[in-house]
Amino acid sequence: MIKVGIVGGTGYTGVELLRLLARHPQVALKAITSRKEAGMPVAEMFPNLRGHVDLAFSTPEDAGLEHCDVVFFATPNGVAMQQTRALLDAGVKVIDLAADFRIKDVAVWEQWYKMEHACPDLVAEAVYGLPEINRASIRGARLIANPGCYPTAVQLGFLPLLEAGAVEPGFLVADAKSGVSGGGRKPETHILFAEAADNFKAYGVGGHRHWPEIRQGLEMFAGKPVGFTFVPHLTPLIRGIHATLYAKMSADIDLQALFEKRYADEAFVDVMPAGAHPETRSVRGANVCRIAVHRPQGGDTVVVLSVIDNLVKGAAGQAVQNMNILFDLPEATALAGIGMLP
Amino acid sequence: MIKVGIVGGTGYTGVELLRLLARHPQVALKAITSRKEAGMPVAEMFPNLRGHVDLAFSTPEDAGLEHCDVVFFATPNGVAMQQTRALLDAGVKVIDLAADFRIKDVAVWEQWYKMEHACPDLVAEAVYGLPEINRASIRGARLIANPGCYPTAVQLGFLPLLEAGAVEPGFLVADAKSGVSGGGRKPETHILFAEAADNFKAYGVGGHRHWPEIRQGLEMFAGKPVGFTFVPHLTPLIRGIHATLYAKMSADIDLQALFEKRYADEAFVDVMPAGAHPETRSVRGANVCRIAVHRPQGGDTVVVLSVIDNLVKGAAGQAVQNMNILFDLPEATALAGIGMLP
Amino acid sequence: MIKVGIVGGTGYTGVELLRLLARHPQVALKAITSRKEAGMPVAEMFPNLRGHVDLAFSTPEDAGLEHCDVVFFATPNGVAMQQTRALLDAGVKVIDLAADFRIKDVAVWEQWYKMEHACPDLVAEAVYGLPEINRASIRGARLIANPGCYPTAVQLGFLPLLEAGAVEPGFLVADAKSGVSGGGRKPETHILFAEAADNFKAYGVGGHRHWPEIRQGLEMFAGKPVGFTFVPHLTPLIRGIHATLYAKMSADIDLQALFEKRYADEAFVDVMPAGAHPETRSVRGANVCRIAVHRPQGGDTVVVLSVIDNLVKGAAGQAVQNMNILFDLPEATALAGIGMLP
Amino acid sequence: MIKVGIVGGTGYTGVELLRLLARHPQVALKAITSRKEAGMPVAEMFPNLRGHVDLAFSTPEDAGLEHCDVVFFATPNGVAMQQTRALLDAGVKVIDLAADFRIKDVAVWEQWYKMEHACPDLVAEAVYGLPEINRASIRGARLIANPGCYPTAVQLGFLPLLEAGAVEPGFLVADAKSGVSGGGRKPETHILFAEAADNFKAYGVGGHRHWPEIRQGLEMFAGKPVGFTFVPHLTPLIRGIHATLYAKMSADIDLQALFEKRYADEAFVDVMPAGAHPETRSVRGANVCRIAVHRPQGGDTVVVLSVIDNLVKGAAGQAVQNMNILFDLPEATALAGIGMLP
Repeated sequence: MIKVGIVGGTGYTGVELLRLLARHPQVALKAITSRKEAGMPVAEMFPNLRGHVDLAFSTPEDAGLEHCDVVFFATPNGVAMQQTRALLDAGVKVIDLAADFRIKDVAVWEQWYKMEHACPDLVAEAVYGLPEINRASIRGARLIANPGCYPTAVQLGFLPLLEAGAVEPGFLVADAKSGVSGGGRKPETHILFAEAADNFKAYGVGGHRHWPEIRQGLEMFAGKPVGFTFVPHLTPLIRGIHATLYAKMSADIDLQALFEKRYADEAFVDVMPAGAHPETRSVRGANVCRIAVHRPQGGDTVVVLSVIDNLVKGAAGQAVQNMNILFDLPEATALAGIGMLP
Repeated sequence: MIKVGIVGGTGYTGVELLRLLARHPQVALKAITSRKEAGMPVAEMFPNLRGHVDLAFSTPEDAGLEHCDVVFFATPNGVAMQQTRALLDAGVKVIDLAADFRIKDVAVWEQWYKMEHACPDLVAEAVYGLPEINRASIRGARLIANPGCYPTAVQLGFLPLLEAGAVEPGFLVADAKSGVSGGGRKPETHILFAEAADNFKAYGVGGHRHWPEIRQGLEMFAGKPVGFTFVPHLTPLIRGIHATLYAKMSADIDLQALFEKRYADEAFVDVMPAGAHPETRSVRGANVCRIAVHRPQGGDTVVVLSVIDNLVKGAAGQAVQNMNILFDLPEATALAGIGMLP
Repeated sequence: MIKVGIVGGTGYTGVELLRLLARHPQVALKAITSRKEAGMPVAEMFPNLRGHVDLAFSTPEDAGLEHCDVVFFATPNGVAMQQTRALLDAGVKVIDLAADFRIKDVAVWEQWYKMEHACPDLVAEAVYGLPEINRASIRGARLIANPGCYPTAVQLGFLPLLEAGAVEPGFLVADAKSGVSGGGRKPETHILFAEAADNFKAYGVGGHRHWPEIRQGLEMFAGKPVGFTFVPHLTPLIRGIHATLYAKMSADIDLQALFEKRYADEAFVDVMPAGAHPETRSVRGANVCRIAVHRPQGGDTVVVLSVIDNLVKGAAGQAVQNMNILFDLPEATALAGIGMLP
Repeated sequence: MIKVGIVGGTGYTGVELLRLLARHPQVALKAITSRKEAGMPVAEMFPNLRGHVDLAFSTPEDAGLEHCDVVFFATPNGVAMQQTRALLDAGVKVIDLAADFRIKDVAVWEQWYKMEHACPDLVAEAVYGLPEINRASIRGARLIANPGCYPTAVQLGFLPLLEAGAVEPGFLVADAKSGVSGGGRKPETHILFAEAADNFKAYGVGGHRHWPEIRQGLEMFAGKPVGFTFVPHLTPLIRGIHATLYAKMSADIDLQALFEKRYADEAFVDVMPAGAHPETRSVRGANVCRIAVHRPQGGDTVVVLSVIDNLVKGAAGQAVQNMNILFDLPEATALAGIGMLP
């Protein structure tokens, strides 16, 4: 059994990790930390876990994380980088669901996250945990930077196009819509029900932290600089991201075949038939990125539609997928759940 | 492997049966019928099933239902009663998720459902599939009448009180709130998004078909006639029923202990701690009835709060639970899923 | 022109007051205070007001409230009682939308609101601003205690029954459902979108502050003590309260006629035809309480359905109605808006 | 008083016309037709109108539309073109809220709407009712083609850029999101609450009827052919459209000044401050298009955010605005309502 610890279990990625790991046949949940809620049974805060998870929150000091085989950080940005080195030194593998190790250029990271990085050398070592690109590197890693939710949906949508050189890299647009759980479980006014329900708005048009993370990936896929515009929107969904991607074709190729071939061996990327429109609810609770590719009226604009559940393939599910790879388990272990529709 | 057929698979109870049965280790899905959609792959209508269910809809004639071990009817009222006898004669067990066999008094049934019953003798034979009451009878049955969604939540909430004679049977009130999926997947104006979202209303105050079904159960529990008022409300939820039950105490007993004892051995009824307020989302997608009992300010009014997912413990999940009992499988097989929160 | 000041304008009752008063032909908005946001234009926080309200928030000290004709308190409980005496002494009328002056028995108030009252003598003077009962007293008042949202819906629903002695006063039940804006605009976890959307729960079953306020009214209507159970529920609506009221008949009277007669002259209470089910959206944004009365299957249980918009007839609209009465204006001035449906 | 008739009043644009016109001081509502509901009081179907609108639905034959001064068609496409000539001949002005007269190229219209046009000569005469462009022509018109909802939001967002030649016309993208009421009040499965709530999807990527309507406008603004991609999305909102527009700059100009100047005299277009993100709820129920313009990180991509209420500025409100212009009334008459927030 893999001994698992979770740091920061009071947010949505934390409870989602528990929902998935509680059904994982090879996992023994050892500790979940929350300084503030230490002593409270997890199932008291998240009653869906009643009868499934017996753990109580513990302080980081009492959690015995150094005796775990793997520790997930489901914490705000800036926490994992303070604790990772000690865990790695103790032989514990680390999967960070926050952004501390996602961006290789530390100066860029510091500019966008507005803090000094505590361990640039570990950034260099960390593997970006998008299995569809980095599966081989993930297998032998000690430290995984689990991708952001928007970056997962957007990168998987652009990947076949850029790898194949099928579009002009200079004018890529991602118009992305996220459910409100993407904003976390912190009490903030703009994500109150009475603010976010029956309402729709863009935000961060001037600059969002996922922009440099996505650009880093797109430039790697393309092998050259890209011009990339990213506009996120807050949508009255609990879960779900829908990325609508726009690019200009630079070669006349069969887009449907391109996507199907690229993802033929990927269990968690589902290329839909030509003409389809993926719905976010079709992946609700499931570790799947569902994609459709269009070329409206046969013109030279490509439109890619890419949906994920931000808490699953966009966070906790992808983290478990990475854990499965790290520990040489079948990649789908505990991840075969079917999306809940309706 | 248990060979399973589903009649009428294009509604919400149909797709939910598929979601649950696709993960059932002892089930082989053999057929799902829809005359209108014959030939269409199920996963085309319900894309969450892509990669999980390969069946296509077939006509009833081509479905070979008589070769199944069990057939679920996820049909409108009045369909199952036309086809059940032939299936039973062929040795097939039948679980009807509609109302055809729920009410023992055929005259009452005909009054509320406004049609003549096709097989009153089978009504007499049918077992009402609420395992918490009828587990022993279910085990040997050929024909199960799967309870309605409101009746499941309301009966499980009143059961301990009436069995124990703890409340006056003459003034029982159930104020029940249901998600919109309880209205089915038929296109009707009042359940359009733009009608039902950000809106709340009671309906059927003058009389709802679940009233006689619930009353039948309450009178059985009490062993005497009851006075019972039932007011259902349409709520802007996709899934979920919340029943708030009111009764007047007739004996001064420990309500918390009463409920905990009654459901101590029930895997799918969760009595919450004193003072708790169950949330519908805590059972979203899960086969659980979660209950709390209150006695506001120590007065003589009992308030019971009872929540289920109308499509799971209120329909498809309970039907699978009944199937597990019928076929002597562990009752929780394929039903251990954790509620999806958030 | 009536010079109006608003204390505490950053919450939902504040912005709703502004929406209504900005269209009031006899009102000059003079000041709106918020210590925290002093200097910010109101329309920057609430962009629906762009082009309609030019005011900026000011500190209480700079607001010049003592030069107003009337001041509305849209503040947390406990604020108005600190400032009311000085305003009254300056000849300013006060309408408190919070609870400071609603409960006549100061000891009861202090028990439920967990603070010492600053001015019990003003509690005695204050008029409870439910115009359908107290119109005459409101006319000459200096200080109005604007009723709570639940109390408005519940009291107007029970009023005809209790005045007429038509029901047994010993077992009155109000099962009430509120939209999330009733919880205010403070950032709190349980009213986040991802917590409250697609979810339904009861709360405060053990005791809610509106219980003593409602009971005070019901006992006044009945002229005797009542047994009253109140269960509020949090509902995924932005606005709206639906109160479902239960009582046992003690006299065989024509309920429809009783209600129609009682409210024949009330512009803001709409008694619907027999058999109707009022919807919350029919009063969305409108200063109306819409009521239907039922007697299911001719039995001895009365069911009253009562809906309001919690921010309008349940708060800001009723406050403007009280202001109109205070200043001898037509009661409907600025309150003739039609509910927004869909 | 202007005598007004409405054809087809059982849909959302119909009830919204009534909500607005009932408060219009110069309007006398004469008739509202629905063959199917003839005889039913309008306020029975739409109870928000109780006390405000006394009309009952009548058959077209009994409606006396030829005695009206203006008739609004709130009908499915293809109805207005059958009845308009007779009304014009009788001296009645016609405002069609459907698409019959929007597209000048009748062949294009017939291709997209899949029917033969009944009166191409009237298409030539009709004035496209976007007052911000065609105010002068509207004034003297007999027949107004009221713009579609998406076309209103998208055209007003692109207008200043194209008129000024500020962007390359060859690669314009409109990613548009609409509330579900945009799909009308017809009972169809995909707009059921349980289908559309907590769900997000694109639709019609291969071709949507608003594409040729928008393109016609954009080419007029630009004075040349444009390359235009339009992707609509179904969003869990009741009301509201958010259009996110992308274009490549071809001149280095001050975008904020450009927009502010273009709309300086427009009462119903609100250009927000630089850096702002308009919310759909800020225009809920209001006849406003609220716009912000961005140039992310100073690059050469322009992003315009444009929001309207699809039933108001996108339909009924704009129709009333056109009526006001037609009859030389102040353009804001009955249109000064403030958006309902929250």
